[in-house]
Amino acid sequence: MRHYIGIELGVNDTVVGVVDKYGHLIRKESQPTGIERPFEEIIKDAATLIKQVLEKDEIDIKSVKYIGVGFPGIPNLKEGYIVRSDNLNLRNVSVRTELQKYYHLPVLVENSANCAALAESVSGAAEDIDFSVTVKIGNGIGCGIIVNNKIYSGFNFAGAEPGHMVIAMGGESCSCGRKGCWEAYASANALIRQTRIAAESNPGSLIHKVVNNDLSQITVFTAFEAAKLGDGAAKEVVNKYIEYLGEGIVNIVNVIMPEAIIISGEISKLGETLLNPLKDIVDSRIYSKDIAQPELKTAEMGSAAIVIGAAMLGLYKETSIPG
Amino acid sequence: MRHYIGIELGVNDTVVGVVDKYGHLIRKESQPTGIERPFEEIIKDAATLIKQVLEKDEIDIKSVKYIGVGFPGIPNLKEGYIVRSDNLNLRNVSVRTELQKYYHLPVLVENSANCAALAESVSGAAEDIDFSVTVKIGNGIGCGIIVNNKIYSGFNFAGAEPGHMVIAMGGESCSCGRKGCWEAYASANALIRQTRIAAESNPGSLIHKVVNNDLSQITVFTAFEAAKLGDGAAKEVVNKYIEYLGEGIVNIVNVIMPEAIIISGEISKLGETLLNPLKDIVDSRIYSKDIAQPELKTAEMGSAAIVIGAAMLGLYKETSIPG
Repeated sequence: MRHYIGIELGVNDTVVGVVDKYGHLIRKESQPTGIERPFEEIIKDAATLIKQVLEKDEIDIKSVKYIGVGFPGIPNLKEGYIVRSDNLNLRNVSVRTELQKYYHLPVLVENSANCAALAESVSGAAEDIDFSVTVKIGNGIGCGIIVNNKIYSGFNFAGAEPGHMVIAMGGESCSCGRKGCWEAYASANALIRQTRIAAESNPGSLIHKVVNNDLSQITVFTAFEAAKLGDGAAKEVVNKYIEYLGEGIVNIVNVIMPEAIIISGEISKLGETLLNPLKDIVDSRIYSKDIAQPELKTAEMGSAAIVIGAAMLGLYKETSIPG
Repeated sequence: MRHYIGIELGVNDTVVGVVDKYGHLIRKESQPTGIERPFEEIIKDAATLIKQVLEKDEIDIKSVKYIGVGFPGIPNLKEGYIVRSDNLNLRNVSVRTELQKYYHLPVLVENSANCAALAESVSGAAEDIDFSVTVKIGNGIGCGIIVNNKIYSGFNFAGAEPGHMVIAMGGESCSCGRKGCWEAYASANALIRQTRIAAESNPGSLIHKVVNNDLSQITVFTAFEAAKLGDGAAKEVVNKYIEYLGEGIVNIVNVIMPEAIIISGEISKLGETLLNPLKDIVDSRIYSKDIAQPELKTAEMGSAAIVIGAAMLGLYKETSIPG
């Protein structure tokens, strides 16, 4: 039996998983990434983690075909290095060269949102869908476009960043330097910020109660919980947030018209509470009414999505590799 | 020698052209479309125009392989009909059935901006570019995405409408029903509106002089001309307009990262006057700096782009036809 190793190089944790050819996770282990350390040490630790994962399941390294690595940022797919990762504070470092110090295996790299999208396509919410876009709502908004089980990332591998599509010219400042990007309105961080501001301006709001008067405990679920309890300020946060999210989704539909859009990230656990009002916005605002419309779904791969997608990189090669 | 007929069903004129296999226009003729008339009559006139065009060049109808038809709206590619064209005020009418009353030839239909984009790709500004987006600035903003000489229009053939991407939530009303769409800020109509408003609020502006005090004569060039003469109000219109156009282009780059973006429509005649400041905005605002960037170019196909692209439809089949 063949095995595939996926690594998620995350801001907080490095996760290593071993996956079978169907995209099923056999085991994963994680440890803090420690991004303040030299890159060589981070990769050395990942290499040790690979050894541990394989040993725990008595998997022979000879059965492993390659190692795939997902990270937040821009990859150079051909040469296996990180062009830029603002989140990991890395530029032009070779994942391939470092990992191959420990394993004589092919090493593939990819943006982590693209990995998550690939995982949904291989064995998750987009399994039977030829052309999907996965929208990953986290600190920012990461996206992956999948066409026929292949990642599409543009001619220079840096594409599919609708999080940095301006929806409100001159609006909220974004980490990318523009003003009004979608992720400045519809990321998890943005929702938490919007919830906190509403709480601060409404001392009587139930938002305070939901977090036991500790606003640092606000999560993406807080406003939804308080809204369910009937709180007006929270309802306004929820309605506006869903509208922000919807405007970006309608934009994606109008621009590239995929068969399905998959919402992933922690907030997707809300299921229909999120999806139903979002569908109403999308249905009423898309340009091309009167014909078949993209499906809107929540993700199914959970927290292992990036690791699984990274492990599948070699099986489903990118369409954007020229030639 | 084989010939290909292209028809542009436009709001004002119907244009019929005959084209060789290299996408070179041999001859075209036009007449007013008369959109208030029954669809059958419009197509009957187009059929007569085909006859005239062929006769003038003594081209035998037997050398014609098929007829391609471009129109503003949503096509059903498989069955050759117009799903919806708000501009032509048509819904669910079969171009194929009507044209085949006069010619026993295959009839293909496509959105006119997609035809223009295909023409640029076959023999225009995107000739050597695998993956291009053509942005056609007219009454609205029409776009076509071309991948390897094929039109990409999404799973339901209604995609590639970045003109209806919101860049200013809650902003200017758009014909599509949303508020803040790109075309409400960056179309030719929008620029003319912006120029008129600036003239009305600045009685001493040179805009008045450029149009001989007749604001109904304002074109997409008026503000640029007055700005060149040093007029402050016109300069502001020009700078803002280029920023609006740039915001949408940066969005397209961040979302789908094509190799090149081709600006077409009358305003593209401004050449570097338009392109240079636009490039500055794009370079400074795109998400993925430090790597190869899409080229920004002006269109080369001129007013025959839609006819030529329509004529080429059968040679370069759509990628979005399933199977």
